[in-house]
Amino acid sequence: MSWDIESMALRYRAGCLELLDQRLLPQQEVWLSMQEPADMLEAIRELKVRGAPLIGVAAAMALADCAYKGADYEAFCLYAEKLRQTRPTAVNLMKSLDRMLMVAKTNYQSTALLEEALGIFREDYELCARIAANGSELIASGQNILTHCNTGGLATAGGGTALGVLRKCHEQGKKLHVYVDETRPLLQGGRLTTYELKKLNIDHTLICDNMAGFLMAQGKIDQVIVGADRIAANGDFANKVGTYSLAVLCFYHRIPFIVAAPYTTLDTSCLSGREIPIEERGHHEVTALVGAEETSMAYNPAFDVTPHELVSYWVLDTGVYSLSEVKKGCLT
Amino acid sequence: MSWDIESMALRYRAGCLELLDQRLLPQQEVWLSMQEPADMLEAIRELKVRGAPLIGVAAAMALADCAYKGADYEAFCLYAEKLRQTRPTAVNLMKSLDRMLMVAKTNYQSTALLEEALGIFREDYELCARIAANGSELIASGQNILTHCNTGGLATAGGGTALGVLRKCHEQGKKLHVYVDETRPLLQGGRLTTYELKKLNIDHTLICDNMAGFLMAQGKIDQVIVGADRIAANGDFANKVGTYSLAVLCFYHRIPFIVAAPYTTLDTSCLSGREIPIEERGHHEVTALVGAEETSMAYNPAFDVTPHELVSYWVLDTGVYSLSEVKKGCLT
Repeated sequence: MSWDIESMALRYRAGCLELLDQRLLPQQEVWLSMQEPADMLEAIRELKVRGAPLIGVAAAMALADCAYKGADYEAFCLYAEKLRQTRPTAVNLMKSLDRMLMVAKTNYQSTALLEEALGIFREDYELCARIAANGSELIASGQNILTHCNTGGLATAGGGTALGVLRKCHEQGKKLHVYVDETRPLLQGGRLTTYELKKLNIDHTLICDNMAGFLMAQGKIDQVIVGADRIAANGDFANKVGTYSLAVLCFYHRIPFIVAAPYTTLDTSCLSGREIPIEERGHHEVTALVGAEETSMAYNPAFDVTPHELVSYWVLDTGVYSLSEVKKGCLT
Repeated sequence: MSWDIESMALRYRAGCLELLDQRLLPQQEVWLSMQEPADMLEAIRELKVRGAPLIGVAAAMALADCAYKGADYEAFCLYAEKLRQTRPTAVNLMKSLDRMLMVAKTNYQSTALLEEALGIFREDYELCARIAANGSELIASGQNILTHCNTGGLATAGGGTALGVLRKCHEQGKKLHVYVDETRPLLQGGRLTTYELKKLNIDHTLICDNMAGFLMAQGKIDQVIVGADRIAANGDFANKVGTYSLAVLCFYHRIPFIVAAPYTTLDTSCLSGREIPIEERGHHEVTALVGAEETSMAYNPAFDVTPHELVSYWVLDTGVYSLSEVKKGCLT
């Protein structure tokens, strides 16, 4: 029996777990072999693999692989704990680890763990398909859509969340033009989203993050759709830094603002966005571009929090929810 | 008699006009000699010299220098026309050329032209001092101020406009913390404003443009102050792209939004911001950072327009004007 499985940026082939190094895209397509537990820890920390859903899948696969290679239960649990510490904001990672730990606790057996990880992998693919189908109903042919960061096949085990919705619209024959925020500091929009849109042959225009408002003022943006790293019970959500500014700009310009994510991104234990931990990353990510001697302080929150009041629609795998529905507590 | 004069980024020494290459800052401080008329045309187009007031001064000096080196009246007028075409948005350039042409028309004599250019140079220095004195009254010790692009000694022949205000506050002993938008695509904030703030020993933190909203949501910004490239009669103004988004964010968060500029930036022949021409620059400035094969379209407006409704105060050399005063037509 073969356990082989693959997505755009993660694959398990003949017992070897590999990921596409997203730090090197779009210039180079380099697959990295995750041979030691330390490899995946570094890959997640260094954003070689990124995107809330894909991090969850990758961590599950890494855990299963470590069990498969003979780690005992104690080492397995220690590894899970180390994976949990890699990045704090996206909750998919924690949920995925909890699922694996639950299986391990009752049945520490490598094939059961591999089955569970593959289940998480396949499920994420399915969740993307449902999000795409649900979200596509909000978007009409001829629209200009702005998106931020990368939320496609590189961020999930399937077709993506926000970008998956746009991909679905394209497959449905809707004519779209996508404006892509470059997404400083690590340029996931400029490097990864444009890479995917080119492959999908979807019309798009790259912009600097600070140009979105001016586009809106000129009436060039019909809707904005983004992904999420963690959605609180009240609908507030954390996503790549810059998302909040976009939400405010949409509010001011009366442009629909849509967030798309699987149920694995929901964290009902967080009552509001205030409880979501926001990762702060190294100053170098901000200052490197300037190339100066680094005597200036920098601030580098990887995410920000958008309050539910600024959101028009939450597109989940389970359906599309409006602000009034979310206010009534439909996410909990 | 000596005609020597110098500012932070422009100098005239022993008959040689030189400018500090702002494309190379902060890593290298290279002074370029403007020997041929074509040198200044290229320097302005390529942003080796930039900042609305400084472009105006540099163009005047280049014209005077060309007359001094023996150009006849016809060549002088042709050169003025070529300078006028270099960049369309900042009106200081046009006003400065018009002043030089007026002198040339009545008295085409190189020392008169040099005196006029030096007058423009010295006047800009004085205007900066008055703007700084006026604007400093709006800012209290202990405040956190966000600024965008570069509006200091590198953008003017004096201490700056918006940044000059902050410099003045610092000299007055007020304790400030300045948040600096890096200002994509050409990073005038990250490269130039941090360079100046370091020299002035003013506390500051560099951020990506898309982080401003999140800082405001956290209550970390007390006021925002920016410069302008052209202010219309009704108070609308063009400034570096990203300014408009900041103004909307300030409006939403009820944070004062201040624009500082000399009267030479006022263009009362433009009734509103809609009439200000917005320069669109090459796509490469946006796409280069991504390093991809450039098959993605890009959009690169160098400026955007902020409507007067979003502005709290206009700080000019002639005084500080509130929104209600501007609505009454005080700028015209």
